[in-house]
Amino acid sequence: MPLVDLQAAQIFTGAKVPEGADVVVMQEEVKRMGKTISVATRPTPGLNIRRAGSEMAAGVTVLEKGRRLDARAIAACAAAGAGSVTVRRRLRVALLVTGNEIRTAGALRAEAQIWDVNTPMLTGILTQPQIDIVAVEQGIDSRDGLFLQIAELAANADLVITTGGISVGEEDHIKPALSDLGGEIHFSGVAIKPGKPVSFGRIRGAWWLGLPGNPLSAFVTWQLFGTAIVVRLTGETERVTRRHVVTGAAISRKPGRCELRPATCVGFDGQGREVVTFDAETHSGHVRGLPEADGLIFLSADCDFLPEGALVEFQPFCRN
Amino acid sequence: MPLVDLQAAQIFTGAKVPEGADVVVMQEEVKRMGKTISVATRPTPGLNIRRAGSEMAAGVTVLEKGRRLDARAIAACAAAGAGSVTVRRRLRVALLVTGNEIRTAGALRAEAQIWDVNTPMLTGILTQPQIDIVAVEQGIDSRDGLFLQIAELAANADLVITTGGISVGEEDHIKPALSDLGGEIHFSGVAIKPGKPVSFGRIRGAWWLGLPGNPLSAFVTWQLFGTAIVVRLTGETERVTRRHVVTGAAISRKPGRCELRPATCVGFDGQGREVVTFDAETHSGHVRGLPEADGLIFLSADCDFLPEGALVEFQPFCRN
Repeated sequence: MPLVDLQAAQIFTGAKVPEGADVVVMQEEVKRMGKTISVATRPTPGLNIRRAGSEMAAGVTVLEKGRRLDARAIAACAAAGAGSVTVRRRLRVALLVTGNEIRTAGALRAEAQIWDVNTPMLTGILTQPQIDIVAVEQGIDSRDGLFLQIAELAANADLVITTGGISVGEEDHIKPALSDLGGEIHFSGVAIKPGKPVSFGRIRGAWWLGLPGNPLSAFVTWQLFGTAIVVRLTGETERVTRRHVVTGAAISRKPGRCELRPATCVGFDGQGREVVTFDAETHSGHVRGLPEADGLIFLSADCDFLPEGALVEFQPFCRN
Repeated sequence: MPLVDLQAAQIFTGAKVPEGADVVVMQEEVKRMGKTISVATRPTPGLNIRRAGSEMAAGVTVLEKGRRLDARAIAACAAAGAGSVTVRRRLRVALLVTGNEIRTAGALRAEAQIWDVNTPMLTGILTQPQIDIVAVEQGIDSRDGLFLQIAELAANADLVITTGGISVGEEDHIKPALSDLGGEIHFSGVAIKPGKPVSFGRIRGAWWLGLPGNPLSAFVTWQLFGTAIVVRLTGETERVTRRHVVTGAAISRKPGRCELRPATCVGFDGQGREVVTFDAETHSGHVRGLPEADGLIFLSADCDFLPEGALVEFQPFCRN
């Protein structure tokens, strides 16, 4: 029986609104006396009633193409009744780490051998929902060996990432092997510090990202180039991730290359801007400071001095 | 045979420094004429030589206890030769979603039934390396049923998360069931908007986080309370994640509760601070705007007006 004027009925959170009712009042706001109730103020009609379609009208776009399905995107899909959605296939990534001086962390080392940082670091970075790591290999230390190895990786991956082996030394076989494979080098060498040798191109059906062998250089160039390449290849819509921060100390440096220096957010200045600290210099082989850092500050190529309190661009590290 | 004064030998990147050598010069900087070489400037002794222990001396702390093992932490461990590290066990989390009006997204619905947003949204958020989701259940809609269900969840989890059922309605059985279980409620109700009913306590051997049933309220209270609780229970060392942003529009609002409003970073002001935009009002049941937002701005309880350009606190959403 529908409610009539001045009549009320009790319902519970989430229940259907009784026919005839034009407002729902929270139980906490209701005073009950026997078979009658009273409320302190006259409620606005429609209050606490949710009408079908009030969140999303039929035909609206719930999620733009290219949006990563994080919890917020999943929530929007669920609210629209989308119990399953069509997604792109994952990006197949192959990793090839070169350098015959490297040994697995903790293994026995001969003189002048060093631990392999790039393999665990990059597999950690690449462990993301949109990526399938299809191969992780140690590079064979000859031009012919690398030829066969890279040919096979390129045949099974969308993106081949190499570390090291891209300098001009005669033992740096990556680029000669690429040339033997008929690969194209789109760029090789960028005026940044660290990471100058970073290279990019194409090997048969796959893209190629050549990261430097020094772990910090590999990490920094991954943040700068790798993240952007993955976004592009997966079709994800890019979001601005850089912001501005204030230097917590003066910087004196040799100009010439744009520098990306790991920095840590430590507080705020009087304008509410984040203040960052950083090492006085960074070493392309040293990763010890990375866990404490939050992102990279950009020091422009021609800058030889920045006072404390200078505004600089800042790119937070990607989530992994 | 060791090198003698003014003698050089060719080596490749990463190779051992020949005995007697005190500097390594990059091949690009060397001019070769038959059996002699020349360099343009006198190199500083030690240049390009990496001595054992130069990155980390024996006995230094590589990583503080409680640091999450992301790629940067893994890199530091690998550089120290730590091929394996001891980690804490994952936090066991059980999720119980209540409300007999909810149906799985996309399933058939009767009148006045709504899609279940909380289950997919929260399982998405909880899919993190430090968490084991041990159970995801739909709440039984009676006090006795919930008693048995929560007793079993609490016996197998470190943290039981419930959504809904914590208001004062007679069908809100969570708190009565908790009381039957001898649970303790440490707090219930916080003067925030959305998310006022958020509750926290203990059920036998487990912690309990009671999130509101409205999806936006559940999401916001997860960001505020859930993330902090997980950090505490996993022993992770907390990092400051809030910063300050500038409002891109004026805000008029009813004072009384601290408001957490989803906001999107859209650019920068003249001081280099991020400018955010937001909806003029938010609805505790609507999640449609969440995918476009980047975090929450904090509007203090007594604030009834904020001009455009005001500095407000901002908490970026957690990574999932």
